[in-house]
Amino acid sequence: MPQSIQMIGIEGMPEVRAGDDLAALVVDTASRQRLAICDGDILVVTQKVVSKAEGRVVRLADVQPSPLALAWGLAYGRDPRHVEVVLRESKRIIRMERGIIVSETRHGFKCANAGVDASNLPDAETVSLLPEDPDASAERIRSGVRVRLGVEVAVVISDTFGRPWREGAVNVAVGVAGMDALRDYRGEVDSHGRPLRTTVIAVADELAAAAELAMNKVTRVPVALVRGYDYRRSGRGGTRALLRQPEQDLFP
Amino acid sequence: MPQSIQMIGIEGMPEVRAGDDLAALVVDTASRQRLAICDGDILVVTQKVVSKAEGRVVRLADVQPSPLALAWGLAYGRDPRHVEVVLRESKRIIRMERGIIVSETRHGFKCANAGVDASNLPDAETVSLLPEDPDASAERIRSGVRVRLGVEVAVVISDTFGRPWREGAVNVAVGVAGMDALRDYRGEVDSHGRPLRTTVIAVADELAAAAELAMNKVTRVPVALVRGYDYRRSGRGGTRALLRQPEQDLFP
Repeated sequence: MPQSIQMIGIEGMPEVRAGDDLAALVVDTASRQRLAICDGDILVVTQKVVSKAEGRVVRLADVQPSPLALAWGLAYGRDPRHVEVVLRESKRIIRMERGIIVSETRHGFKCANAGVDASNLPDAETVSLLPEDPDASAERIRSGVRVRLGVEVAVVISDTFGRPWREGAVNVAVGVAGMDALRDYRGEVDSHGRPLRTTVIAVADELAAAAELAMNKVTRVPVALVRGYDYRRSGRGGTRALLRQPEQDLFP
Repeated sequence: MPQSIQMIGIEGMPEVRAGDDLAALVVDTASRQRLAICDGDILVVTQKVVSKAEGRVVRLADVQPSPLALAWGLAYGRDPRHVEVVLRESKRIIRMERGIIVSETRHGFKCANAGVDASNLPDAETVSLLPEDPDASAERIRSGVRVRLGVEVAVVISDTFGRPWREGAVNVAVGVAGMDALRDYRGEVDSHGRPLRTTVIAVADELAAAAELAMNKVTRVPVALVRGYDYRRSGRGGTRALLRQPEQDLFP
């Protein structure tokens, strides 16, 4: 029997507001869509709705840009208040060139603009931040689904990141609960009995990328359900395992 | 109606040998599995079987290592002949540290070991190279499927690449035919009528990553079919669009 995996976009979510119970919204929206969330399913939730529900939205009117943010914004035609929020969300600037800021966030993610983003927000004068602790956000959704439906799911919170060397952004995992972010093939052998070379696969990132295909940036599909992917139920969750330690990274 | 995408592993492929007609093998294997390949499907094929079919396999006994390869192999406990093949497949060495060689291949891919790989080969004394022109390989499979079944599919050839900053490898596209590797949202607006920030998504990479979930490194599932992803049929194919030009890259 061939392994078959399904990705289903959960459509028709209402606009998410600060304080909303995201697990309840997802369960209700799926139910209206006559989509049963089942044991072993994986919910991939875009960072944007998580940040909105957690009130991680900043009004630009409340931001006083630093001289650095002012100068940079002026030089590259960007709102200095937006630049200021990016700098505040960064714990280390990796590159700051040609109007692009690549930095390391407090969580340890290396990405453009520290995950600060102005799209898909009802108010044009606001920007969203990454969740404070996206792994905890994922765990909250997971336990919220468990409480409501009595099923165990894994949850991946995704965001759209650019990357070095390759054009085009891809969705990656910024929060994980209920499964291991990495799948480790060490000790296993290939179909010829030889040890596998590439031994560790970032399955949480692959799930985030896969789910993006079933979402739609233009309409409102902020959650996708992945069904049929066989993950280890005892997985520990968390994105720490996805963060390469500086001393291991050839590209710090 | 929610967008639903399916990924189905094509199992039971015979061992692929040099000169094999890969399109014929895929069509026959899918048929034995009672899986109809339909118009608009996407076939994701791992590089390994493409390289085997194209005879891109090198016997280490035929390789004379250079002094550089000898010294490096000795220093890090690697077969100097394997190292030599990596150096030959590289047009530029990006990093050569702690036993890891990151280089740019002739095609312009930046990856570890220039895509040279010893796993999933019947003979332990051989290594596989990337296809000479993976976009052309993808196009051959695409037209082979068209000739045999009269259906138009897109084809993505995938390989497993590590990346800077994040642990764990993911599958990415090294060959594309029948669709655009990038999906460009420029000019479109979000659900609030505001322009989208992240405008270009590397959907070919996301398809490769998604398909990996339906494959299995240990058993023999070198091909997956993706059904239900709505791509532009007039897409031009090719992976050139995925290669960031050096002058645009903050991480050369």
